[in-house]
Amino acid sequence: MAQVGTYPAEVLREFSARVLEAAGVPPDDAAQAADVLLAADLRGIDSHGVARLRGYYDVVRGGQVNARPEPRVVRETLTTATVDADNGLGLVVGPRANEIAIDKALEAGSGWVAVRNTNHFGIAGYYVLQALERDLIGWAMTNSSALVAPLFGTSRMLGTNPLAIAFPGDEEPPIVVDLATSAVAFGKIEIARRRGVPIPEGWAIDADGAPATDPQAVYDGGALLPLGSTRELGGHKGYALAMVVDVLSGVLPGANWGPFAPAFAITQTPPGSVGAGIGHFFGALRIDGFIDPDEFKRQVDHLVRTFRAAPAAPGTSGPLVPGDPERAAEAERLRDGIPLLPAVAADLEALAVDVGVPLG
Amino acid sequence: MAQVGTYPAEVLREFSARVLEAAGVPPDDAAQAADVLLAADLRGIDSHGVARLRGYYDVVRGGQVNARPEPRVVRETLTTATVDADNGLGLVVGPRANEIAIDKALEAGSGWVAVRNTNHFGIAGYYVLQALERDLIGWAMTNSSALVAPLFGTSRMLGTNPLAIAFPGDEEPPIVVDLATSAVAFGKIEIARRRGVPIPEGWAIDADGAPATDPQAVYDGGALLPLGSTRELGGHKGYALAMVVDVLSGVLPGANWGPFAPAFAITQTPPGSVGAGIGHFFGALRIDGFIDPDEFKRQVDHLVRTFRAAPAAPGTSGPLVPGDPERAAEAERLRDGIPLLPAVAADLEALAVDVGVPLG
Repeated sequence: MAQVGTYPAEVLREFSARVLEAAGVPPDDAAQAADVLLAADLRGIDSHGVARLRGYYDVVRGGQVNARPEPRVVRETLTTATVDADNGLGLVVGPRANEIAIDKALEAGSGWVAVRNTNHFGIAGYYVLQALERDLIGWAMTNSSALVAPLFGTSRMLGTNPLAIAFPGDEEPPIVVDLATSAVAFGKIEIARRRGVPIPEGWAIDADGAPATDPQAVYDGGALLPLGSTRELGGHKGYALAMVVDVLSGVLPGANWGPFAPAFAITQTPPGSVGAGIGHFFGALRIDGFIDPDEFKRQVDHLVRTFRAAPAAPGTSGPLVPGDPERAAEAERLRDGIPLLPAVAADLEALAVDVGVPLG
Repeated sequence: MAQVGTYPAEVLREFSARVLEAAGVPPDDAAQAADVLLAADLRGIDSHGVARLRGYYDVVRGGQVNARPEPRVVRETLTTATVDADNGLGLVVGPRANEIAIDKALEAGSGWVAVRNTNHFGIAGYYVLQALERDLIGWAMTNSSALVAPLFGTSRMLGTNPLAIAFPGDEEPPIVVDLATSAVAFGKIEIARRRGVPIPEGWAIDADGAPATDPQAVYDGGALLPLGSTRELGGHKGYALAMVVDVLSGVLPGANWGPFAPAFAITQTPPGSVGAGIGHFFGALRIDGFIDPDEFKRQVDHLVRTFRAAPAAPGTSGPLVPGDPERAAEAERLRDGIPLLPAVAADLEALAVDVGVPLG
């Protein structure tokens, strides 16, 4: 039984699908979108799961996002394609575009699909897990509305632009990398502000570009810093990685990039438009195009065990393998249910009333 | 005329080629290797240029590296391949493998080549510039001998594992990303030790895994930290990126990975072997497989100008675009010659005597 404040994943999945259907999303698409949302909640990335359900409902219901998109391939080669997502939910059109990359990889060894005219697609990790199920190396990236300053800049010019890559193991679990190219997620600033505690230097700057330790400064015209934080610690590298994600996801398909990427709710207006919607970039590589897949997976197992067995730094339990924390969260939450913050639970209860769909 | 201590690029290129020929490298291969080395010196990445010429000479002359490799494709699909580099110099076999990726991309939209049984390949940036000359998006990565600790670890488990990606512009120069996935290059530790100055927290740890500010601690069993440095600032992300490079470059082609990657001079022995040599990973994407290339380049120009025009942080001249510092160094060094540290110049003069090849 779920504790107070926790909900079984199936309940939230069903609810999410029904809510999106009520907004006009066809049942199959709504089920797909709910699956992406719940992957975030199960894997402990609470900011990208049902906490955003009302946001998705509102933009579809309000007509800013197309409830019944008909994505189409606008250009392709044997191994590449650009998809115009017809302004659909990223949660719906993202999986379809990813499937095209997977199909191309199965056919020709590798597949790469850039997507424009799309919207937020949930967690990047979802897409690479889909590739893993087909025994492929999966890649996924997306750009997003600007929150991050370039190194030596003061203004928000880049999204937190995540990238994910996954490699299958044999007896060991897969290596699943899923990271934002900013030093921290915006959610950590929100939490610090709510608690009234300072943030560490290296996370953000204020409106003048000076290091911010007051989380409020980020809201008052400040910006997040890229991974690496400062020039001394490699902030130029995180900035460059964010730009790589922006060019592959935004420029390559003809989407908006950098400061022109529209916001989640499409209520804040960027300073103009240089393309259609935001953009994603998906890739898949067939392992047997390089090496015997069994040998590859044996080596991944060996690598995973080697890193887990490495000596632990003081005060830690030793190195983790990318994907470990999310896998641990998923096991726990499948068993015990998904704990929701009181504010998120209240929001979903209110949504249930508004939409006329019972929650659980 | 070159100033005292500076040498025209052509002189160093010619000298490098002659020295490698004296070690038994065929003339065309020696010219290719010299071209990669000089790209580093011209672009200001002094640690990867002629400063390493004696090291390359010694391993070829000593027979640890094959002077006359015959690389072969051991597995391939239309868009992927694994190359066994026959234990050649990375400076020689890297460009050949990269050319295979380029040819596959021109043929099928994308090309991806993993290389095993190879050795250090110079700067990753060289390879993506080759792709740019064919109007492709270029990718290059390599693993290398372990210097970097995983987050929450104390021991050297990963190389500085660089990755490079480049995108062509139209009127503006290309975006050229070339970064090590460690917080800093090992060269910065060397410089601090020579000068007797402390290093900033976040660059390295000592043998016990505690933050090191004495550069000597890194030599005494310490390790570099990954990009992001600490858990708080995102060190798990740099660690994950280094592992991605290691799996694509090392595991995928059947090379050594992680702590098993052999050292540059092949005199220090890793704790065993799990593959052949070190590994590289090259990729190329045809832009017209996604979008009209002229439109892409116009948008890259727009992006480059937008970032250059962004407000400057206090005490800086504003955001740079990845590749700017290297391009500035190249323009200056083509004009004024390549300045060599006295120790490097003395080493080359001694090499000239040893090998019987005049320097300039």
